Amino acid sequence: MRLTFKPSLDPAAYRYVHHLRTRFAETDAMGIIHHGNYPAYLEEARAAMLRDAGFPYEEVRAGEDGIDFAVLELYVRHRRPLRFDDLVAVHVVVADLTRTTFQVGYLLTVADETRATAVTVHGAVDARGRPARMPSFLGALLGAGA
Amino acid sequence: MRLTFKPSLDPAAYRYVHHLRTRFAETDAMGIIHHGNYPAYLEEARAAMLRDAGFPYEEVRAGEDGIDFAVLELYVRHRRPLRFDDLVAVHVVVADLTRTTFQVGYLLTVADETRATAVTVHGAVDARGRPARMPSFLGALLGAGA
Amino acid sequence: MRLTFKPSLDPAAYRYVHHLRTRFAETDAMGIIHHGNYPAYLEEARAAMLRDAGFPYEEVRAGEDGIDFAVLELYVRHRRPLRFDDLVAVHVVVADLTRTTFQVGYLLTVADETRATAVTVHGAVDARGRPARMPSFLGALLGAGA
Amino acid sequence: MRLTFKPSLDPAAYRYVHHLRTRFAETDAMGIIHHGNYPAYLEEARAAMLRDAGFPYEEVRAGEDGIDFAVLELYVRHRRPLRFDDLVAVHVVVADLTRTTFQVGYLLTVADETRATAVTVHGAVDARGRPARMPSFLGALLGAGA
Repeated sequence: MRLTFKPSLDPAAYRYVHHLRTRFAETDAMGIIHHGNYPAYLEEARAAMLRDAGFPYEEVRAGEDGIDFAVLELYVRHRRPLRFDDLVAVHVVVADLTRTTFQVGYLLTVADETRATAVTVHGAVDARGRPARMPSFLGALLGAGA
Repeated sequence: MRLTFKPSLDPAAYRYVHHLRTRFAETDAMGIIHHGNYPAYLEEARAAMLRDAGFPYEEVRAGEDGIDFAVLELYVRHRRPLRFDDLVAVHVVVADLTRTTFQVGYLLTVADETRATAVTVHGAVDARGRPARMPSFLGALLGAGA
Repeated sequence: MRLTFKPSLDPAAYRYVHHLRTRFAETDAMGIIHHGNYPAYLEEARAAMLRDAGFPYEEVRAGEDGIDFAVLELYVRHRRPLRFDDLVAVHVVVADLTRTTFQVGYLLTVADETRATAVTVHGAVDARGRPARMPSFLGALLGAGA
Repeated sequence: MRLTFKPSLDPAAYRYVHHLRTRFAETDAMGIIHHGNYPAYLEEARAAMLRDAGFPYEEVRAGEDGIDFAVLELYVRHRRPLRFDDLVAVHVVVADLTRTTFQVGYLLTVADETRATAVTVHGAVDARGRPARMPSFLGALLGAGA
C-alpha cells in the first residue's frame, strides 16, 4: 500500500475546487448516489484541475512524451451519502510526489457539509502502459496553493 | 479510517469465488478496463457470495428488518490492468466483523494471475439510512471456509 | 413504437440548451465516448431543462402527486463520435404531448458541429410505477420557446 | 434513420440467447434498473454471440483488417422494468445486412416474460474510424439459425 496521504476536512487545505452536479443515472435503489460513481467524480475533478492549471489532460496524453496517469490505488471514505441533484464541491490537492508516483487528495462537500474524502495514487505510464518519467509540471501543483 | 483488513494474494485465503467477464463498455481510451468499474465488480461478487450462502441480498433488503449494507470505505489496489473480454475470478472473504461494521476482502485474478486486491468496509443501515443491528448470518461467512 | 418526433439539425428548433463536458471514464477502447453514456447525457439535459423552467425533478418526484417520468422508448443516432474533454451542447425540446406520453428531442453539438440526435418517449408513473396523470406544466415546455 | 428491423416478441425468432444478471450498481432511485444500462447489456450479448460463433470480438479488432463495429443507431423499447438480481435472457439476431451496415435485434426476457426489445444499427470502421468493408462472417450469423 503506497497510499500515505491523509485528506483534511478543511477546504482550505486544498488547492483547487471543482463543482459537479450528480445525475439521476448515478442513483441506486437505496435512493442515494451509488458509491461506484465516486471514482469518475474524482477523475473529473483531477482533469478540471489540470485544465485550469494549463495542462489539459488531452495535451499531456497527446504530447511528445505521450503519457497517462495510471491509477495505482484508490481509497474513498463515505461520511454522508450524496443524493440526486446535489451540487458537489470536489476539493483537490496534489501531494506526496515521489520519483515514480504522486497522490491526490479529495474532499467532497455539499453546501459546506462534508460528504466524503478520498485519495488516489498515480504513476506515469507511456502509451504502452510502461512506467514513464513523471512530468515536471506536477511539482507546480503541490500543496494548497496561493 | 476503519479499514484494517489486508487482502492476501493467495486464493486459498478466500471463502468464495465469483467469475465475471469484462464488458467493452467498461474499457477506456487507454485500452484497459477503467478503474471506475471495479466497485461494481466487487459488489457483484458480494451479492453472488450472499446468494450462494442462502442469503439473497434482495431478501435481506426486503426482510422484516429490511437492511442495506452501506459502503463506508473502499480501497482498491491495481496491480495489473484488466482488459476487454477478460474472464475475471473475484475471490471474496468476510473479515473483521465488529458490532457495527464488517469488512470484505477481494482478490481479482485472470488465469491465476493477480490483477487487483481490494477491501470494502460496510455498516448495516435500515430503510431510512440509520445504523442497524448487524445480521447474525454474517458470522457464518467469516474466514476462508471449509 | 410510439416514437414519432423527428429531431431537427437546427439548434433554433430547440427550447433549451444544456452544456456538459465528457469524462475520461466515459471513453472506450476505440478512443471515443462509449454510446452507452448518451442516455445519461440526455437525462442530465432533461433535468437541467426542468430545473431551469422552475420544476426541479426532485420536487416533482417528492410532490403531493409524487410522479416519475418513466422512459418508454429511446432512440439515438450517432453522426460523429464525441471524444474525451469535449464540451457538448445538448439542445432539448419537449414535443408530441398526448394524454399519456410526451416526447423529448435532442441535438448534440460540439463547437456548432452536429454529433448526434436523439428522442426519448416518456410516460408519467406514480411511486408504485403505475401510469399517472401527466403534470400540466409540461404543456408550458412545448415547442422551441421564445 | 437507417433502423428498419422490427424485433419480434417470440424468442424463436432469435438465433442466440445470452444470460446476464443485473447489478445493484445498475439500479436507480426508482428502484428499477436504470435505462442507461441497456446499451451495455445489448453489447455484452452481441459480444457473447460473436464469441459463441467463433469470431471473438477481440480477434476481429486485432486481426489483419482490424475493424470495429461502430454503433450508428440505437433503439430501445421498455415494456416492463428490470429489477436488481433479475436473471435476464437477451435473445439476439443479426438482420438487414447491407454493403455498409447491419442491424441486430434483441428481446429481453425474465422468466419468459418480455421486458424490452431493442435494435442497433452498425457499420464497420477501421482503426482510424473510417468506414471499412463488412466482414464476410456476418452473413453466417443472419436469421434465427438452425
